[in-house]
Amino acid sequence: MSNPILVNTLRGEVIENRHRGAIAVCDPHGRLVHAWGDVDALVYPRSSIKALQALPLVESGAADHFQLSDAELALACSSHGGEPEHTAAVHSWLTRLDLDEDALECGPHAPSNDEAAAALIFDHVAPGRIHNNCSGKHTGMLATSRFLEEETHGYIEREHPSQQRWIDALGEMTDLDMQRLPWSRDGCGIPVIAMPLKAIATAFARIAAPDDLPAARSSAVGRITAAIAAHPFMVAGSGRLCTEIMELTGRRVIVKTGADGVYTAALADKSLGIALKIDDGKSEAAQVAILAVLTKLDSMHAAELEALAQRCRMPITNTRGVLTGYRESAGL
Amino acid sequence: MSNPILVNTLRGEVIENRHRGAIAVCDPHGRLVHAWGDVDALVYPRSSIKALQALPLVESGAADHFQLSDAELALACSSHGGEPEHTAAVHSWLTRLDLDEDALECGPHAPSNDEAAAALIFDHVAPGRIHNNCSGKHTGMLATSRFLEEETHGYIEREHPSQQRWIDALGEMTDLDMQRLPWSRDGCGIPVIAMPLKAIATAFARIAAPDDLPAARSSAVGRITAAIAAHPFMVAGSGRLCTEIMELTGRRVIVKTGADGVYTAALADKSLGIALKIDDGKSEAAQVAILAVLTKLDSMHAAELEALAQRCRMPITNTRGVLTGYRESAGL
Repeated sequence: MSNPILVNTLRGEVIENRHRGAIAVCDPHGRLVHAWGDVDALVYPRSSIKALQALPLVESGAADHFQLSDAELALACSSHGGEPEHTAAVHSWLTRLDLDEDALECGPHAPSNDEAAAALIFDHVAPGRIHNNCSGKHTGMLATSRFLEEETHGYIEREHPSQQRWIDALGEMTDLDMQRLPWSRDGCGIPVIAMPLKAIATAFARIAAPDDLPAARSSAVGRITAAIAAHPFMVAGSGRLCTEIMELTGRRVIVKTGADGVYTAALADKSLGIALKIDDGKSEAAQVAILAVLTKLDSMHAAELEALAQRCRMPITNTRGVLTGYRESAGL
Repeated sequence: MSNPILVNTLRGEVIENRHRGAIAVCDPHGRLVHAWGDVDALVYPRSSIKALQALPLVESGAADHFQLSDAELALACSSHGGEPEHTAAVHSWLTRLDLDEDALECGPHAPSNDEAAAALIFDHVAPGRIHNNCSGKHTGMLATSRFLEEETHGYIEREHPSQQRWIDALGEMTDLDMQRLPWSRDGCGIPVIAMPLKAIATAFARIAAPDDLPAARSSAVGRITAAIAAHPFMVAGSGRLCTEIMELTGRRVIVKTGADGVYTAALADKSLGIALKIDDGKSEAAQVAILAVLTKLDSMHAAELEALAQRCRMPITNTRGVLTGYRESAGL
């Protein structure tokens, strides 16, 4: 069985590239409301579940103890662009934990934001761990560990309580037995666990409609989604789709990208969760696909879609600046 | 109908990304010797046909007139990395034509070679047209036009003789009526024509075994393939698969990548041509696929495959330098 084509790239009148994938839309009871493709196949959610991975930061009491700002909570859920605002906030937060960049166990990589990457090259500064798009998530894990007075060294290992906590929370939010699922290492070094898209969508439906969750969990979800909605820049950055969508929708549509063509969404007004994966891992195709499903579900207002028109049907230009085609939904 | 999965990306034990595609292997008579997927579907060959586009440069007499070196001929067939050796050679060639970078009608883009791109940023130099990976091809077109005393301004337009010449040659090499095929603009601004993979493979079989072509064509093909084989660095550059393969195989296996997941090959010792396209346009998948088909056809010697082992099964590491998986052939 092959998943349906979700996104095409046109050059002139000819389809040049095709992107297949699967999309699950679930309610908080785990019921599949819409599905395209094989939503039972195992996929790695990658960074798309950072809001879930941040639950222990709030539930442990660490967020209160360190008086975390909403911007810092948003950063804990981010795949940031490594822009100065992001790295300054991570640096300041680490300092309050009596830690520095060396405590981060994610590896270094150049900022995904082109300007920030060019600034480092120009200044002869090698990218550091703080520029890793996951440095906010890691700082959140370190904060919880510091608050609980754990050894922080080795906090990225699966056996460490830092990882066990979010894995347990994810098991509760997805109704999956996390111990039975295949896992590997994510780009930043922490574990990544493969799971069905429909389970991920269910967890995000519970993010969208947390009222039936235990009180402490419901409260933590509310605080995290409020923080994300208040600081969409901190979750991604300049020119990034996650930021652009949530600047328009606020808490009504919480979205998060994950590496290799993953996207999740929590639709507060519809009590639905979405999870999608592009088979070939193309991020730009996942962007077009999440907008297509949000459109299909009437989750975006007309003015919002208008503002994002060039995201829904992405113009492609060549090196001369001439329009050569579009990346667009194949139709859902 | 969907094309078969040609390449997978593994993270741990789980397949994270899948790349479908089609491959045609043809002989000089246009007979399909092997096929995977739909080889009749129209694809844009992009830069994979630059050796064919360089035919008029030799056949017109321009290459002789300007006493082009083999390195310059190879550059005319290149998608170069914008490294100093590439841009210096283009600059020197343009100067001999009494032209400068402004005559190039390709747009500017940052060198695809990371070091060359970083050097420009560090020096506060904006990328120029000369850094465009196609600047050698454009200089070859300008050389022919200068030799024939044509107006060079607007040489990238389909109506200009510069384009008509290679389109005519391509029609002869593929047995296709170029006027009936859909076309658009390539990344560098010249026309790009959509055609069946099997026709592209046939043209490369004729590159591999040019003896049955008209004498002037056969001679031009021989001169071009000799130049490419003698200067594989000029065709691509540092760390590039095309260069690495041909540094090992010389003229026996001539390969060329094209944007959006295309690869072609001309197998001199087997009189076969190969053309492949990854549906989703992923270049790294096309690299694995071309090596898989070359292996399947016994076109690479054991020592060559050994030298390219990490290209055939590409290790993927995370930001910590930890191996997380492989990009590998799904089996042909």
